[in-house]
Amino acid sequence: MPDTAMPIPALPTGLLDALLGVLGPRGVVTDARDLEPHLSDWRGLYRGASPAMLRPASTEELSMAMAILHAAGVPVVPQGGNTSMVGGAMPDESGRQVIVSLTRMNRIRDLDPVDMTMVAEAGVVLKTAQDAAAAAGCLFPLSLGAEGTATVGGVLSTNAGGNTTVRYGNARDLMLGLEAVMPDGGVIHGLRRLRKDNTGYALRHLLVGAEGTLGFVTAAVLRLFPRPRAEAIALCAVADEDAALSLFRRFRDRDEGAVRAFEYMSGTGIDFALKHIEGATLPLSERADHYVLVDLASSRPDADLRGLMEAVLEEALEAGEVLDAALAESEAQRHAIWRLREEHPEAQKREGASVKNDVSVPVSKVPELIRRSNAALKALIPGSRPVPFGHMGDGNIHMNLEQPEGMEAGAFLARSHDIMDCVNAIVRELDGSFSAEHGVGRLKPDMLAEWRGGAELETMRRIKAALDPKGLMNPGKVLPA
Amino acid sequence: MPDTAMPIPALPTGLLDALLGVLGPRGVVTDARDLEPHLSDWRGLYRGASPAMLRPASTEELSMAMAILHAAGVPVVPQGGNTSMVGGAMPDESGRQVIVSLTRMNRIRDLDPVDMTMVAEAGVVLKTAQDAAAAAGCLFPLSLGAEGTATVGGVLSTNAGGNTTVRYGNARDLMLGLEAVMPDGGVIHGLRRLRKDNTGYALRHLLVGAEGTLGFVTAAVLRLFPRPRAEAIALCAVADEDAALSLFRRFRDRDEGAVRAFEYMSGTGIDFALKHIEGATLPLSERADHYVLVDLASSRPDADLRGLMEAVLEEALEAGEVLDAALAESEAQRHAIWRLREEHPEAQKREGASVKNDVSVPVSKVPELIRRSNAALKALIPGSRPVPFGHMGDGNIHMNLEQPEGMEAGAFLARSHDIMDCVNAIVRELDGSFSAEHGVGRLKPDMLAEWRGGAELETMRRIKAALDPKGLMNPGKVLPA
Repeated sequence: MPDTAMPIPALPTGLLDALLGVLGPRGVVTDARDLEPHLSDWRGLYRGASPAMLRPASTEELSMAMAILHAAGVPVVPQGGNTSMVGGAMPDESGRQVIVSLTRMNRIRDLDPVDMTMVAEAGVVLKTAQDAAAAAGCLFPLSLGAEGTATVGGVLSTNAGGNTTVRYGNARDLMLGLEAVMPDGGVIHGLRRLRKDNTGYALRHLLVGAEGTLGFVTAAVLRLFPRPRAEAIALCAVADEDAALSLFRRFRDRDEGAVRAFEYMSGTGIDFALKHIEGATLPLSERADHYVLVDLASSRPDADLRGLMEAVLEEALEAGEVLDAALAESEAQRHAIWRLREEHPEAQKREGASVKNDVSVPVSKVPELIRRSNAALKALIPGSRPVPFGHMGDGNIHMNLEQPEGMEAGAFLARSHDIMDCVNAIVRELDGSFSAEHGVGRLKPDMLAEWRGGAELETMRRIKAALDPKGLMNPGKVLPA
Repeated sequence: MPDTAMPIPALPTGLLDALLGVLGPRGVVTDARDLEPHLSDWRGLYRGASPAMLRPASTEELSMAMAILHAAGVPVVPQGGNTSMVGGAMPDESGRQVIVSLTRMNRIRDLDPVDMTMVAEAGVVLKTAQDAAAAAGCLFPLSLGAEGTATVGGVLSTNAGGNTTVRYGNARDLMLGLEAVMPDGGVIHGLRRLRKDNTGYALRHLLVGAEGTLGFVTAAVLRLFPRPRAEAIALCAVADEDAALSLFRRFRDRDEGAVRAFEYMSGTGIDFALKHIEGATLPLSERADHYVLVDLASSRPDADLRGLMEAVLEEALEAGEVLDAALAESEAQRHAIWRLREEHPEAQKREGASVKNDVSVPVSKVPELIRRSNAALKALIPGSRPVPFGHMGDGNIHMNLEQPEGMEAGAFLARSHDIMDCVNAIVRELDGSFSAEHGVGRLKPDMLAEWRGGAELETMRRIKAALDPKGLMNPGKVLPA
């Protein structure tokens, strides 16, 4: 990390004046104390420097500001809730990159319960979007740990996943149209509320997941769903990884549309949660080595999901796949079960240092991924404790590794790249991905080069050069230098 | 149309030899009689000319052939089942454009009922893909009129929609990964069977819907679903367009996941079907001006969809929205009801000349679209007969117009562009699209220029220039000259 007291070159006065003219004093932040929270990332992996943060209040303001910055050749870093797991919203250490935050663009422009659409600006916090949908009797299903901070622009730019992807898809699948500001300030007016629209290249899908390297997502048409009126949630102890997969298949085959989430957790992960999270309790009589959280939901009040849950669990008990299971009987129990899963990151943090691997494989290969990774990681660092958990129904497992007890955290973290390489080697053999839902950001462009080479990388580079010829949009992210 | 007897310049001998060397004699078609079926489109809108059709047997062969053609600067036109509604697979009249058909690449490389994925080559016929899924106890849900001829490569390149989009999405949504050959012969190896994979730009989504102007889709990982084990289908006479929408909302709100299709039909359209289609009968006691077909399905055997259907229809009868309804009691009745809908295009053809408008609007605006278009079209051409029908649940209505009785077909068809303009003016006011599911092809690039101008068109042009700098891939399609 650079010395943060190192002087940052200020923006030229003429440029600053032009930006102030367009954005007003509220739209240009240069005070070091105000900038401070925007210069380091949530995970503490990076610390950057920046001469200013721009806070446009509208698409038009952003467009004008980008035209000015583009003409002046100033690189920009879009920042939403700053909850990236891969440093995607961090400026580099040069002090030349201007941060652009869209958090002032936080209006929900429209919500239509007939069309089942919401038009939300980039700065709307995910939780706010969820609440607005709920207030209209609808559901916006994207749900993830950082939902109280992450923004609509951020979750779309990174194609965020989360807990309900197995039922509702990734952020991409929840988006019908986009408004965007391109690197030269051009505005794409694509806020179409259409379920079918085959009119040229799918620019919206190119911008989703581009992590701000091709332009800014400024607003989006989001899909809403009827809110669930029936649900059933269970925590199950299962025999092993294969039994977990088999149980998923039983539920999927029986009522594919009802499986809202299907999450795997290891015995180690649950142990950490029970140890560190206040009030956490295990609703089963015995500890197990493997657990799954089954979450069923339906918009149909008479869906009898409890009956479905009990019938499937009974089959799986008889087959020896499920060892024990607890069905939530109340909202409090439902919450308590989900909390065991949601507090996994926090519990790992309190237990010590850990290294995160956000990987995915074909669903059929999840058991092999977990088994092989557990063994390889323990062999790599004796005493280390694998904590695999996550979205089994999507093939997306957070194959995290907790430091050995008593080891110095720094010494453990110094092995981060070895640990990632160890898991990635297995993932690659299983035709998986080195980044399932967190993206590439600043952490993984080298992996992109290694895994997505040839015509794939060449095509990405051509697109980048065509849409951002000066290379000013979020430099150093996604594509390798 | 040009004189088809006009001599077509043959490919230079050296080039032909090089292609024969790579593709073999079965892979290079130059006989005029063999070429003939590939030079006119399904709707009879266009007739093109071509010196040869290439039929590579593998991705490697296509890659090598494209490298040769790219070096020689020869333009190519990808052709699948040749069922485009907008001339998307037609060469122009110059005789310079080589047709490339992937119909020999028709293997299903893999089908995995655990991952719920199928890896199909571009030349696999849609119906074959459906059947392969069914044989494995799964469902590949993409379903459309041309499914016995259209290919996987074609439906992905055009992002086809069809009847079940309301439940399963467009072709895009059914695709997890793609293999593609780029204009210079480079191969993108993206056949990843992953539900979550955030590693760089979504090239697969750029190629889907690009109508072969950026490269060839050579194979795809398709999503499968559990096959439905319960269904309920009804034909309903409804009071008016608003009642049809209201009925859709009742079903969607009650059990959103169960609505497999929700199709609107006009009295005129049903009249044509009853008049022209052998064996077609109306299962209701009286003719009506507006009908809907409701198709519910679930993978849950005990879903009681009949109970759901009856309960919702009873509410809607009481509310005066539904006038009469017939529930299918057998597979034969189910088929008979669907046939009334599926034979709409054929019945219109037999009744006389008609002009097709494949438009979409936000779902909430479908009633207004139909009402206003009906009135405007009758005013534009007195005696003409609007036949709106299609996918109400997606906002996608085929706002077709049948010629006045006794009018000369040619005189009516001479008004085609006036008719399209008339509907499109209304669609545009309703924030809709001039092409919901058929694409742009050769028929509608001018509309693309008019509707998607500014930064949107500019960005598309930049992408085209970056990925196909010589402009050799399907020239004259999608983007205006």
